[in-house]
Amino acid sequence: METVKQTLKIGMIGAGRIGKLHAENLVSLDQVELKAISDIYVDKVIDWAKKIGIKITTKDYMDILNDPEIDAVYICSPTNTHAQMIKEAAEAGKHIFCEKPISFSAEETFEALKIVEQYGVKLQVGFNRRFDHNFKKVHDTVKNDVIGDPHIVKITSRDPEPPPAEYIKASGGLFMDMAIHDFDIARYVTGSEVEEVYVQGASLVDPVFKHYGDVDTAIITLKFENGAIGVIDNSRKAVYGYDQRVEVFGSKGSVSIQNDHPNTAEISTIQGVYRDKPQYFFLERYKDAYVVETKEFIYSLLQDSPLVCTGNDGYQAELIAKAAKESLELGKPIKIEQLKSEIMNS
Amino acid sequence: METVKQTLKIGMIGAGRIGKLHAENLVSLDQVELKAISDIYVDKVIDWAKKIGIKITTKDYMDILNDPEIDAVYICSPTNTHAQMIKEAAEAGKHIFCEKPISFSAEETFEALKIVEQYGVKLQVGFNRRFDHNFKKVHDTVKNDVIGDPHIVKITSRDPEPPPAEYIKASGGLFMDMAIHDFDIARYVTGSEVEEVYVQGASLVDPVFKHYGDVDTAIITLKFENGAIGVIDNSRKAVYGYDQRVEVFGSKGSVSIQNDHPNTAEISTIQGVYRDKPQYFFLERYKDAYVVETKEFIYSLLQDSPLVCTGNDGYQAELIAKAAKESLELGKPIKIEQLKSEIMNS
Amino acid sequence: METVKQTLKIGMIGAGRIGKLHAENLVSLDQVELKAISDIYVDKVIDWAKKIGIKITTKDYMDILNDPEIDAVYICSPTNTHAQMIKEAAEAGKHIFCEKPISFSAEETFEALKIVEQYGVKLQVGFNRRFDHNFKKVHDTVKNDVIGDPHIVKITSRDPEPPPAEYIKASGGLFMDMAIHDFDIARYVTGSEVEEVYVQGASLVDPVFKHYGDVDTAIITLKFENGAIGVIDNSRKAVYGYDQRVEVFGSKGSVSIQNDHPNTAEISTIQGVYRDKPQYFFLERYKDAYVVETKEFIYSLLQDSPLVCTGNDGYQAELIAKAAKESLELGKPIKIEQLKSEIMNS
Amino acid sequence: METVKQTLKIGMIGAGRIGKLHAENLVSLDQVELKAISDIYVDKVIDWAKKIGIKITTKDYMDILNDPEIDAVYICSPTNTHAQMIKEAAEAGKHIFCEKPISFSAEETFEALKIVEQYGVKLQVGFNRRFDHNFKKVHDTVKNDVIGDPHIVKITSRDPEPPPAEYIKASGGLFMDMAIHDFDIARYVTGSEVEEVYVQGASLVDPVFKHYGDVDTAIITLKFENGAIGVIDNSRKAVYGYDQRVEVFGSKGSVSIQNDHPNTAEISTIQGVYRDKPQYFFLERYKDAYVVETKEFIYSLLQDSPLVCTGNDGYQAELIAKAAKESLELGKPIKIEQLKSEIMNS
Repeated sequence: METVKQTLKIGMIGAGRIGKLHAENLVSLDQVELKAISDIYVDKVIDWAKKIGIKITTKDYMDILNDPEIDAVYICSPTNTHAQMIKEAAEAGKHIFCEKPISFSAEETFEALKIVEQYGVKLQVGFNRRFDHNFKKVHDTVKNDVIGDPHIVKITSRDPEPPPAEYIKASGGLFMDMAIHDFDIARYVTGSEVEEVYVQGASLVDPVFKHYGDVDTAIITLKFENGAIGVIDNSRKAVYGYDQRVEVFGSKGSVSIQNDHPNTAEISTIQGVYRDKPQYFFLERYKDAYVVETKEFIYSLLQDSPLVCTGNDGYQAELIAKAAKESLELGKPIKIEQLKSEIMNS
Repeated sequence: METVKQTLKIGMIGAGRIGKLHAENLVSLDQVELKAISDIYVDKVIDWAKKIGIKITTKDYMDILNDPEIDAVYICSPTNTHAQMIKEAAEAGKHIFCEKPISFSAEETFEALKIVEQYGVKLQVGFNRRFDHNFKKVHDTVKNDVIGDPHIVKITSRDPEPPPAEYIKASGGLFMDMAIHDFDIARYVTGSEVEEVYVQGASLVDPVFKHYGDVDTAIITLKFENGAIGVIDNSRKAVYGYDQRVEVFGSKGSVSIQNDHPNTAEISTIQGVYRDKPQYFFLERYKDAYVVETKEFIYSLLQDSPLVCTGNDGYQAELIAKAAKESLELGKPIKIEQLKSEIMNS
Repeated sequence: METVKQTLKIGMIGAGRIGKLHAENLVSLDQVELKAISDIYVDKVIDWAKKIGIKITTKDYMDILNDPEIDAVYICSPTNTHAQMIKEAAEAGKHIFCEKPISFSAEETFEALKIVEQYGVKLQVGFNRRFDHNFKKVHDTVKNDVIGDPHIVKITSRDPEPPPAEYIKASGGLFMDMAIHDFDIARYVTGSEVEEVYVQGASLVDPVFKHYGDVDTAIITLKFENGAIGVIDNSRKAVYGYDQRVEVFGSKGSVSIQNDHPNTAEISTIQGVYRDKPQYFFLERYKDAYVVETKEFIYSLLQDSPLVCTGNDGYQAELIAKAAKESLELGKPIKIEQLKSEIMNS
Repeated sequence: METVKQTLKIGMIGAGRIGKLHAENLVSLDQVELKAISDIYVDKVIDWAKKIGIKITTKDYMDILNDPEIDAVYICSPTNTHAQMIKEAAEAGKHIFCEKPISFSAEETFEALKIVEQYGVKLQVGFNRRFDHNFKKVHDTVKNDVIGDPHIVKITSRDPEPPPAEYIKASGGLFMDMAIHDFDIARYVTGSEVEEVYVQGASLVDPVFKHYGDVDTAIITLKFENGAIGVIDNSRKAVYGYDQRVEVFGSKGSVSIQNDHPNTAEISTIQGVYRDKPQYFFLERYKDAYVVETKEFIYSLLQDSPLVCTGNDGYQAELIAKAAKESLELGKPIKIEQLKSEIMNS
């Protein structure tokens, strides 16, 4: 039997906020060398890259794909570049970690995944919540049959404040940009595919969403293949902080997770009992999950073991997002099966 | 100005479980005399009635309506008798407390309310949760603008176990029998009417529900006139007990209530940290709410002040139930306005 | 075998706040007739007594003790009258419910209990917390060996505000007036007697306590016969409301109770997460416990079954209070055994 | 004004569990070079040291003290070596981070601190809890006068399981080994010195403690200079995990912290509601606090700003531990002032 590869060499494409986060997590790992980083504004990241010990910085991501030493790439560039880069990376024989969503178009994603399959590389999608202590506990509890067959799934997912207008414009909309994480969690905690989607949406937070044909508030009903039904509620603005809760209710009980708080202190005064708000946003809340998702990715490459979050997981979530968008536009429930057929036959 | 009436004389129609509960709450109040009680199985209730000091027991509820001394009646007979009795009681000039729902048919309810209005009597509907410490706190918090404009309303309402098959058969279905409370709470906590309803339902608990054309599990999406959106999730069987929670999320924050527990004890052992299940079912959970709803009804009669829960509140909840049933059958969202028009023009 | 007595006739001595509370609980019970009430200011209570259906009102409590129809008496007069009344009631063959403490002097209490024993009547002391849902759960959890052998007992007991100066003056001091409930709970939840007491006390809330040789803040260390150790912390002023918590920690785990709240609502805003203060004071907090303690007393008389809270329970708590007072004065730990010997040999 | 030093060179003395922990935290910091490490079993740590990039490994800690490049040392060797090493390091002009306790003898500690003062180096003691999110929140809440003047302080501090017998033998006893953290926290959260100590202790967990003249369970009463009173309860074995809670109760309210849990999941089944136990022990619980304490130490050296936890903080905690031991032996309260005088005059 062959020995396990001792050290993985990684290249990073795109060094924005999330790319830098992954890079810093990578350099703290044993058995990993973050060899190169590319960014179209490479001048802005050279100092940072040097400080954390990255040898090569380049403007052109092809320098990374063409480097025969590099085993795997992190694609952290804007979403509209993902699908093309995945195809090229797969053709170059690199394993791939790609930030979510794979693309704004389920059709494009479908095409990219075909190439990935053809070249036999591994592809992990950046649904970091699967690696979070709370969400993982829900998943494990359901999987271990502690609550029996899932009947109802409830996901609350609210951001503390809306992104800037330019971001909203290019975001792909609430479903593709924000709820896509929740679609993945819905599949992850139930272990079932989604069959049908219905959306009731509104623009209550800021008229800018309406301006761009988007909503900022939504209630999304899901029907699962295993018979369960579910609901996601989203808001772009929870003034008290990032609100991330899940409940799965089943034949033998329920499991639910609450928000993480920066401390457990409770203060009682003549006015009442109060505590600090939950963790502010995803960088604070999912700090550890980002570390774990990269550890698990590296581990899967080193051990050649299955990924926790695959390209197909990315594709399925995008299908649900597409259905949600159609439901909102048409004001009626949409079946996923039909979308799938259209894509496969297109 | 006339002085406040010193003592109210009450008659009770129907002395089943809920009738007895109201009767015992009535006898403990000052300024109230529960003078008479009628039940078609009067023999079964005579001893109980005597013990709690009720003077008159009768098989015929007309004895109560014909008694000129009686100021108000409690209608606690089966639902299919309510509408007729409300009309007769109104014509006899009696104020009315009627258990929910007023009828299984929004049309019948509409007719009954016209008579109530015509005769100028007061009618309170038995939506007891409006008088509960938790639900009232949600209502007050929203009303006092603590959380700003409501954006999302979430109601969880699950029974600990399904009723017997015969009950299910005659219940009017999940929406009219069980969710009707939640429809009322949705209106109560938002202070807004419901515009549109969409239901995703399933029979996951017991095939008996499917057998009677009913569901035992549902996710109900609501759109409100004030722009808010909402969701109710129902199950006929939560093995851990009665599950009654509400959250209202708004522009300035959110308010949420958890279940009441029989005690606050938390036990930590090598296995983990655990506590007792929530209160088992509605009789335990809403014990105090039943007392308060009767106190408030009596108070409104004595002071001639507005009711907290009117006949119209009963009617609106029935309209939503009717819309929910149609949505389930047709697999699409239903607008309330259309139902209303049909009823008014029928 | 003789049949169970059908109805108990009760007399009440003293109709202040707590007497009235017991009286109203008694009249709501089956199998009980509250026949007579005595109060030295009888004029003030006649109307109230009439309204709740008490036949006899008198200034002289001997009218109650001399009434051969009366089976049992409630002694709710000032503490300094309890011991004498207990003796007289016992001699008159009446069963006795006596408010806490039995007296301000463990010697007097010891004498009164001898008479009670001699005449074979039952005596329940008004340690209402034994009948509370939370405290009872702690007791049951320990008794059922869920947490193993008790090692550490922690009791927090704080009032929301100090009583008036005149009350403080005549109260018998923090230990006899307030902590005596906690001494009883310490014995109740551990099922063990206290061997030794050490007090660290201070007057931090109001100088009036110091003025009367009293403290308003205390930490009381207890050593139990079964080897466990414990601590009580008391304050006369918790601005956020009545604070009543207990934890028992043992070889197999721990059980702890938190305060009861008026509702479960949690409000999240930009400032933080807050909820209402705990129940304000003992009348709200122990409303149900007062009902249960009277039900259990009546039940014990009717069934001739053991009392949950006996005269000896009152005596033991007074011994601990006496030891606490001595410890504070002398600045050293005091053994209960020695106090007991002194009393028995006096 | 002089510029801030760019990089600190650190030497580590002792590379056991806690030394390794500090070393790994140090290497992840900017502006720090962990240049050398000494351990009497240096062979065992060479591989580990190389992997994390430490240049020099040695058996003799004097190699570190004699290295003129080294700015500061971490003393993580056994307690009985601390005092001597502190003196030598101070004489060598090195700043010092020393694990707790400084020594087993308040006299020795006093002597070491005199040398530290004489040579003008900084000394931080490893009371890591001061840097924990929960404890810091209590401290800040009190300091910001949110709860007014502190009246009562309650600290619960229980280990999940006792250390091995050999450790117990050499530990210095419960007060010096374990409660010393709590003595520091008592001073930290109240901002006041302790005046008097009384201990009620027992050996309930394992007879090995009694065998070595130690206790495994204790209730420690504290009197503070600012008038507050406090209590610490300790156990060497909480089967449900590490139990670390604090409450400060004051004139304007209270602040309390609960345990940290590995997740927020709550599971409800027919048996009840349960959640996972708290974090298992100090390495999991205080993982972040260890990082912060080192960051703050480095920051204080770089900025020449005051330390959060000084040598005097170590000394004061040892004085309280000494008083606690005496109290247990003599069965009476002990004043700190007297211990201080004895030490200063010895």
